[in-house]
Amino acid sequence: MSAPGLFLAMETMPKGTRIACADLLAQLHWNEQGLIPVITQDVHTNSVLMMAWMNAEALHITLREKRVCYWSRSRNQLWRKGETSGHQQRLCTLRVDCDGDCLLCLVEQTGPACHTGRPNCFYWQLEGDEVVIISEARATRNTG
Amino acid sequence: MSAPGLFLAMETMPKGTRIACADLLAQLHWNEQGLIPVITQDVHTNSVLMMAWMNAEALHITLREKRVCYWSRSRNQLWRKGETSGHQQRLCTLRVDCDGDCLLCLVEQTGPACHTGRPNCFYWQLEGDEVVIISEARATRNTG
Repeated sequence: MSAPGLFLAMETMPKGTRIACADLLAQLHWNEQGLIPVITQDVHTNSVLMMAWMNAEALHITLREKRVCYWSRSRNQLWRKGETSGHQQRLCTLRVDCDGDCLLCLVEQTGPACHTGRPNCFYWQLEGDEVVIISEARATRNTG
Repeated sequence: MSAPGLFLAMETMPKGTRIACADLLAQLHWNEQGLIPVITQDVHTNSVLMMAWMNAEALHITLREKRVCYWSRSRNQLWRKGETSGHQQRLCTLRVDCDGDCLLCLVEQTGPACHTGRPNCFYWQLEGDEVVIISEARATRNTG
C-alpha cells in the first residue's frame, strides 16, 4: 500500500523526530472490517510468536493495560490474550510500520503463545518437498 | 481464526512429523482477495523487516526462485522485492502458522527492506504520549 497522509508526509523525517501519539494513531489504516494486522514478537528471543488482528478498541485496551488484546475474528469479540489460558503478553514496545497498516508488538510472553501449547504459532517449516513440525505441542490445549 | 481441515487435524502431532508440502500448501487460508499475510524476518538479526501479502502465484514464484515475491495491493501486480531497488530478499526458510492463515519468511536481506531506505518498515515507536522515528532514512527512496 502507498503510505497515506501523515505517514507519506513524514517518510523522510530524520531519526528522533517526535509527534503526538494520538496524531499518528488517528492515521492508522484499518481494513474494511475495521481491523489492522498485528505481529507479536518475543522481546527477549526476537522470535515471532503470532500474527493476529486488533480493532480500535483492542488497541486502546492494549495501550492502557499494557497487556495485548486482539480482536478474535472467529469469535467476533475482544480477545485479551491469556484471559483463559493465563498465557498473557505484557506489552513492552509497540511499533507502527511506514504505511500505518501494520503493528508490531514486542512482548514478554507468559507460557506458550500458540493455542497448541507450542512456543509460537509458526511451527510448520518447509524442507524441500515436505513440511515438518519443528516444536513440541503440550498436552493441554487452550484457545485463550 | 479456528484452524481449518488439515491444520486442525494435525495440531497435536509431535515434533518431527512430516507431510507433503503440497498437501499443506493446498490448505492455506487465502482471504476474499486471494491473499495471505506474510511476515518477513531477517534470518541473521531476527528483526522483523516488513509485512506484506502474497497470492498463490507469488508464493509459487517465491518457492521456485528462492527470492521473495509479494502481491502489491496498491499496484495490483506481482512484486518481486528488489526488482527495481536491488534490495532483494533471499528466502532461507518459510514457515506456516497453526491456522494456515499467515506465512513467515526468514530471509537474507540485501540493503534496506523499507522503501524509505530504513532497515525495516517498523520505524515508528510509541514512547509515552509520543511516537518517535527510531531509524535513519536514506536520501534515495525506492518503492521496489
